[in-house]
Amino acid sequence: MKSYYNDTIIAIATAPGIGAIAVIRLSGPDAINIANTFFKSIKGNKDLTQQKSHTLHFGNIVANNKILDEVLVSLFHGPNSYTGEDTVEISCHGSSYIQQEIVQLFLSHNVRLASPGEFTLRAFLNGKLELAQAEAVADLIEANSTASHQVAMQQMRGGYSKEIKNLRQELLDFASLMELELDFSEEDVEFADRNEFNQLVDKIRLVLKQLVESFALGNVLKNGIPIAIVGEPNVGKSTLLNALLKEEKAIVSEIPGTTRDAIEDEIVINGIVYRFIDTAGIRETTDIVESIGIKKTYEKIKQAQIVIYLLDAKTLNQEKSKLIHTEISKIQEQFLHKKLLIIVNKMDLTDINSVKQLLPFENVHFISAKTGEGIHELTLKLTSLVQTGALSSGDIIVSNSRHYEAFSNALKALNEVKKGLDSNIPTDLIAIDIRQALFHLGEVTGQISTDDLLGNIFANFCIGK
Amino acid sequence: MKSYYNDTIIAIATAPGIGAIAVIRLSGPDAINIANTFFKSIKGNKDLTQQKSHTLHFGNIVANNKILDEVLVSLFHGPNSYTGEDTVEISCHGSSYIQQEIVQLFLSHNVRLASPGEFTLRAFLNGKLELAQAEAVADLIEANSTASHQVAMQQMRGGYSKEIKNLRQELLDFASLMELELDFSEEDVEFADRNEFNQLVDKIRLVLKQLVESFALGNVLKNGIPIAIVGEPNVGKSTLLNALLKEEKAIVSEIPGTTRDAIEDEIVINGIVYRFIDTAGIRETTDIVESIGIKKTYEKIKQAQIVIYLLDAKTLNQEKSKLIHTEISKIQEQFLHKKLLIIVNKMDLTDINSVKQLLPFENVHFISAKTGEGIHELTLKLTSLVQTGALSSGDIIVSNSRHYEAFSNALKALNEVKKGLDSNIPTDLIAIDIRQALFHLGEVTGQISTDDLLGNIFANFCIGK
Repeated sequence: MKSYYNDTIIAIATAPGIGAIAVIRLSGPDAINIANTFFKSIKGNKDLTQQKSHTLHFGNIVANNKILDEVLVSLFHGPNSYTGEDTVEISCHGSSYIQQEIVQLFLSHNVRLASPGEFTLRAFLNGKLELAQAEAVADLIEANSTASHQVAMQQMRGGYSKEIKNLRQELLDFASLMELELDFSEEDVEFADRNEFNQLVDKIRLVLKQLVESFALGNVLKNGIPIAIVGEPNVGKSTLLNALLKEEKAIVSEIPGTTRDAIEDEIVINGIVYRFIDTAGIRETTDIVESIGIKKTYEKIKQAQIVIYLLDAKTLNQEKSKLIHTEISKIQEQFLHKKLLIIVNKMDLTDINSVKQLLPFENVHFISAKTGEGIHELTLKLTSLVQTGALSSGDIIVSNSRHYEAFSNALKALNEVKKGLDSNIPTDLIAIDIRQALFHLGEVTGQISTDDLLGNIFANFCIGK
Repeated sequence: MKSYYNDTIIAIATAPGIGAIAVIRLSGPDAINIANTFFKSIKGNKDLTQQKSHTLHFGNIVANNKILDEVLVSLFHGPNSYTGEDTVEISCHGSSYIQQEIVQLFLSHNVRLASPGEFTLRAFLNGKLELAQAEAVADLIEANSTASHQVAMQQMRGGYSKEIKNLRQELLDFASLMELELDFSEEDVEFADRNEFNQLVDKIRLVLKQLVESFALGNVLKNGIPIAIVGEPNVGKSTLLNALLKEEKAIVSEIPGTTRDAIEDEIVINGIVYRFIDTAGIRETTDIVESIGIKKTYEKIKQAQIVIYLLDAKTLNQEKSKLIHTEISKIQEQFLHKKLLIIVNKMDLTDINSVKQLLPFENVHFISAKTGEGIHELTLKLTSLVQTGALSSGDIIVSNSRHYEAFSNALKALNEVKKGLDSNIPTDLIAIDIRQALFHLGEVTGQISTDDLLGNIFANFCIGK
């Protein structure tokens, strides 16, 4: 088979550490040949190079007449493999020692240790994956919630890749015609129908605008939704977080051997990650130290998508209610577009009606973080705040910041093209902006790629992928 | 196929955490059927239940019309699988989220989470492995050095299992004849030739004696060889350890993504693990606090197999040399069977000949931990001290303490049998000891096993094996 590379690479593909089994992956023109050198089948004298693709073979890895391990070997003939090259996966016992010994054995026989993401890079270069799909593989592996998993999976299965590729092709066709016009500039011909071209530019601009706008949501789904909790000490911030944690029936807890990463104040609710940011109150003060605290609170609110204003029902009175009114209007003034939730805690200790009279706001929620009352309703409210249609409707979402940047740049260039067309500026000036747009669209689809760009993308992968 | 169990189990078989890929293993009569329910091939409409054993299939895991992941499925038809049952291995992307979602999906469809070692337990119960081989699987996964790996591998490939099984059978045949004699006791017949029986007992006793004696080495190869370093402060103990660490070209360091467990003072040299135990000196004293220190030093030496007596060449003089003589003779007296190495450090700072005159011992080694001089020779010396023939000669070694105990008990019982034969005590009394020996030998081969015993053995396994 024809392959982009002519060397063979190896890496441990499973998570580091001790497990029941581990998988070592070899890819490249010599993968099967070299694996065959060290593989001895238990019965008979099997030659791996003579076996069919997509078959499994039980045997020993033998080096210097010593058995390193009993293994299962999976064979894949290129191009019907992940990388598109001949590939061998060795499933061995999951001891770190054995994994290392096997890798070392191959490294000393004309096999090179794969760099991070090199298997996926080869898949891309051998035409098995679009660049955007390849990038989604890393996102998929890092996905830690239903939402981030869904976004990555959508992208890996093609996502906007194909549509962008098609639109770029249409744009390219027009561009070629216009470049041709330039060659015949003295004759003042028009090969490219300006009307049709105008329509195409508008169509692409609309698609790009939607994609660029989806990034805010995509980014949030991928990295978690920041929620600032504004509230004085002792109103029950940590009790609220614990109550939310309890409400979410952690998937992980039922599977021994896997533990959830202990990221403080990061909670998955209905498949969406929320990052809770604790802040102090924001009351007017003349005290310098306190005013620094208030400034910090504002900064934290700025980072958040949702602001939870948490109150203690027990300490609420006429006087405090006035202060709260001031604070809430300040937040609403300063942060016009943030979603604000006013949450009254310790409802089990007070009369709700009297509290309602003191706080005549919309969006007031009553909870008792201690007894758990109102917590379930709060999680539903949070989910509905986030799912502004986009997540559930299956719309295609941009979550990759590299793509976001490329789409934004392409959109900017096309806006210039549009302006140029409207004001009838010369074709050679418009052509420059078209080339810009083509370049940036090509960056996403991978039709324009440099070693630097690929290096940056795949450096973020784990080894073995 | 006939299988010991009628339910299907699942577990993540690779190390916990995030990797490029992870493998989830299903085993049981419904494994292929249930996997087929959620598997959708990318092209066509492949039915996993119609596929051959030892084949690989690319497709999606789909639940509720949502794609959970693109996976590779390995199919094994019992009895040609690890467990002997129908087995499916799902190789998915290595995100913790995906691993958990897939496991959860199967758990909600008549599949049970495997308990630790349950796959191997099934392999044993389905006759795929002897018990001793099954136990070696856990040792193999835990092996962290060439020596411990070799011992485990030897045992997994059969080891003494077969020999013990055969000897036990011979013993059982004699036992049956002797039990028969008891039924005819009034007639005073002798079905079992006492001469032949005597020879068999001697033969088994010899084998058992060798196995029992090999345990000291086996245990040490498995768990590391304890070395006590006796020496005053500042003679260079930690510099020596660092120099030894440097000498050993750690296999691990060249493979990114895997890290050596940071076990302090545990060093692998030429494939053998050494555990270094730091102690103080052992000089005569009247000071109570110091004498407690000396007592502790003695206790630590007691735990060691090798004692390194470390000296500073620079501070050596006539007077000190006398003290050293006393100390060394004390160690040799107290610990007759420990291997003692006298090491003179800081040789770069003194005249070796004058030191040699002050220390006219055998086994004196000159090193400079600082410059590294003599360190390589020291590692060779350590290796030769350990390899008392057994490791290199390929003799079979017992490293499992359960087997050691069973063999010791069997040997004890056979010694009683021998005594009984010599003193012509009645057959019915001898028969009791024979039954004991048969029982203990059967414990190793697995011919005698109770739920308790199996529970204990497999509880030490990791999940997924």
